[in-house]
Amino acid sequence: MNDLSTAAVPTLEQEWSTAARIARSAAATDSRYAPNAGFHRWFADRNAHAQNDVRPIPLDALVGWSADPSTGNLAHDSGKFFTVEGLDVQIPDSPVPHWTQPIINQPELGILGVLAKEFGGVLHFLMQGKVEPGNVNGVQLSPTVQATRSNYTRVHAGRSVPYLEYFRQAERHRILTDVRQSEQGSWFYRKRNRNMVVEVTEDVEVLDGFHWLTLGQLHALLRVDDVVNMDARTVLACLPFSGDAGPLAARPTGDDTGGDDGDDGFRAALLRSCAGGAGEEGSTDGVLRWLTGVRSRSEVLTSRIPLNALEGWHRTEYAVAHDTGRFFELIAVDVRAGSREVQRWTQPMIRPCATGIVAFLVKRVDGVLKVLVHALVEPGYLDVAELSPTVQCTPENFGHLPPAALPPLLDVVREAGPERIRFDATLSEEGGRFFHARNRYVIVEVGSEDLADFDHPDYHWMTMHQLADLLRHSHYVNIQARSLVACLHSLSGRPPAA
Amino acid sequence: MNDLSTAAVPTLEQEWSTAARIARSAAATDSRYAPNAGFHRWFADRNAHAQNDVRPIPLDALVGWSADPSTGNLAHDSGKFFTVEGLDVQIPDSPVPHWTQPIINQPELGILGVLAKEFGGVLHFLMQGKVEPGNVNGVQLSPTVQATRSNYTRVHAGRSVPYLEYFRQAERHRILTDVRQSEQGSWFYRKRNRNMVVEVTEDVEVLDGFHWLTLGQLHALLRVDDVVNMDARTVLACLPFSGDAGPLAARPTGDDTGGDDGDDGFRAALLRSCAGGAGEEGSTDGVLRWLTGVRSRSEVLTSRIPLNALEGWHRTEYAVAHDTGRFFELIAVDVRAGSREVQRWTQPMIRPCATGIVAFLVKRVDGVLKVLVHALVEPGYLDVAELSPTVQCTPENFGHLPPAALPPLLDVVREAGPERIRFDATLSEEGGRFFHARNRYVIVEVGSEDLADFDHPDYHWMTMHQLADLLRHSHYVNIQARSLVACLHSLSGRPPAA
Repeated sequence: MNDLSTAAVPTLEQEWSTAARIARSAAATDSRYAPNAGFHRWFADRNAHAQNDVRPIPLDALVGWSADPSTGNLAHDSGKFFTVEGLDVQIPDSPVPHWTQPIINQPELGILGVLAKEFGGVLHFLMQGKVEPGNVNGVQLSPTVQATRSNYTRVHAGRSVPYLEYFRQAERHRILTDVRQSEQGSWFYRKRNRNMVVEVTEDVEVLDGFHWLTLGQLHALLRVDDVVNMDARTVLACLPFSGDAGPLAARPTGDDTGGDDGDDGFRAALLRSCAGGAGEEGSTDGVLRWLTGVRSRSEVLTSRIPLNALEGWHRTEYAVAHDTGRFFELIAVDVRAGSREVQRWTQPMIRPCATGIVAFLVKRVDGVLKVLVHALVEPGYLDVAELSPTVQCTPENFGHLPPAALPPLLDVVREAGPERIRFDATLSEEGGRFFHARNRYVIVEVGSEDLADFDHPDYHWMTMHQLADLLRHSHYVNIQARSLVACLHSLSGRPPAA
Repeated sequence: MNDLSTAAVPTLEQEWSTAARIARSAAATDSRYAPNAGFHRWFADRNAHAQNDVRPIPLDALVGWSADPSTGNLAHDSGKFFTVEGLDVQIPDSPVPHWTQPIINQPELGILGVLAKEFGGVLHFLMQGKVEPGNVNGVQLSPTVQATRSNYTRVHAGRSVPYLEYFRQAERHRILTDVRQSEQGSWFYRKRNRNMVVEVTEDVEVLDGFHWLTLGQLHALLRVDDVVNMDARTVLACLPFSGDAGPLAARPTGDDTGGDDGDDGFRAALLRSCAGGAGEEGSTDGVLRWLTGVRSRSEVLTSRIPLNALEGWHRTEYAVAHDTGRFFELIAVDVRAGSREVQRWTQPMIRPCATGIVAFLVKRVDGVLKVLVHALVEPGYLDVAELSPTVQCTPENFGHLPPAALPPLLDVVREAGPERIRFDATLSEEGGRFFHARNRYVIVEVGSEDLADFDHPDYHWMTMHQLADLLRHSHYVNIQARSLVACLHSLSGRPPAA
């Protein structure tokens, strides 16, 4: 039982202090406890030694996985991990009112946990250099712990998951974030992971393959293609980030967040957006009512069907693919790993047929940055629609349709000149389930008067503070939007000297 | 598209003013525009004329409903309304780790809408005197509109739903509440209704069967058995109720909310709990993290199964019943109605086998009332567990088990002396789906030092303000707890003179 009158609930002052400490870590673009130079050596070394040999194999060559004789659904022989099934989707009154598709059903709640600790008064985060079979490259930075329940109950008889107890016994430590969030609603059926950041004060042994980094260091790495993995991005996005370094900002850090840096005021507008402001409180109710309206208007009827009952999909020796060659394929891979819990295994994966575009359009309104979010319906969501990037699509999937069928505002993103582009990196999606799945993550700033004639009931301008408010809850902000939130946070720091 | 910088989003001042106007309406225990005496005449007259003749019939005698030959699932021939199916429930590591049961699957989102309008500066709410086939008595007070999508798209060729357009075009008016909320998680599979209160300024024709009432009048009626129906209670609970009449309280109303009225300070503690307080903001994060923990610990695996595949249930001519005679039965009824959309129909219903107990334990901590909520797992919830009353059970269902198996704290509720009981009324559940389903709703105040040794991770003390904060979102506060929130609100007014 938790009695708020007596339990160790943080006070308002402590909450604020957490935000200030996070801002201070964001401002630290280097660390004397974990210098950039050392990190890059470690990362290169890790890449050189952590090898994965991944080869597509025939679906029938999966070992430890079986297709149900009547449904064709793929399941692990242990009954754990995940299954690949079919999904029948009906969205009446929509452009595509009915379709079927393969989908990953993973009802287990996993943990994505990042360990945090102060060194020299600056929060550092313990990241893992991890190889996943679906990565296009080798190692990417992942959370300290990235584990399904099957992982940590050791279904596959691998080694125990290091650092897991910090998250299973989180109440013994200081919890900075603990919220369950959804993952890709087009590929996962109602999957959720628990996004956690737990701060400790005790000594932590740094195992092989792990490295401390400040938030500012992570922000710099986020701007590099395919380095910070999806699981790390979603956890970082859920940090209580206000950008406000508070009274601690006065401490000499060598990386203070003040000033305008000649960036034409973008940073200041972003920080104001993160901080929230007077008079904004009531507007969260406006956002909630808008979303209630969208979720009420949209009727989504999904039912799980046998994988062998899909329409418009066909099975070859190596894949279940859409007849048009678009969207994605279900494939199987054989993995030989050097540094995973087990050394060799096979598994099904989803391979998207092209790289997607994930973009926020942002603009300044009265000096405050606003983000244009889209309440997007995806069949795997628990609750109809989630707040998504302004644009989230794979243009190739629309190749057979007239240009007018392309998602709204895609042209604005594609045609944005370099002076409009605030962030642009190609980042990987979850390499444990998706094979070479990448999206170009873009943040485009439009003029304050632009898009004045764009009036669509499924889109809404929001501040970062409003998004952060909703990120405390489940089922509001989708995983692509969470990645972009982390990318926006990465723009809050003073840019490195030219 | 909704641009918060320009759209008609209420300002903080307006929000506060809404709360003040609601408090003012709560303080109005009578109305010169809709006097109590006239209401009681209208209600008696309505009862005398709105007759329903409801008779149980054999399941096979349902007209317009068919059992699927292979599954036995009951469905309306139109494919609309709802189906009755089977549900297989697995909750590993719980006292009853596996069971099957019938469940109502109603994926349509309905509207529960109450129309509001000021008369003489006091908000009045337009209530409907409505007969439902499952009511133990005749008429109960329901929202202005209580309609499934099938209702208002006129699947059953009935009359159109009066006042519906106010809610379908709500953005033209002032929206006081608009949030989707769950219903009974033991009997419904993921059912949700949109709870709306819409305020208008234009003239509203009062049709036969409708009556304006202040919130204070509704609060008095809530304390009478079986008068305010479940749908009305949940909508009232979602009103932004702070109890703070603000500057308007100074207006002479004849029913001001000040003073202590010799009630030993209970009202003042309740109002402080509703108003929230400085330093409490951070604690909502504590509540959210606690609930994340509960929802993460509890693994609930449900799958819809054929109704004829239930285990431990048997079918007779008139019912599908549990072999022990406990829990509930699925029955069929023939309804002849005087004032419904259509005049005669048959339908399946759920009949619980006994009256339940639904209770909040409350206590004062430093002059602020705290409510002990229970994060309860029910199989029909979209998201594992919802905040529920301290006690929510039907004791008869535990008859075959040792006394230790009874829910925690049930004995505290049952043994409470009259001086501890702040609210006690038997109220009906939804009469459109449930036959004679009633619960005793009780609010018991325990001493500030009581329950100090009750330490259970699924229970949490919360203020009314924290509950109100979560009531702005879906999937947090279950329907029984929402009823109790409305009952607590009803205790905020000065008691009538003895």
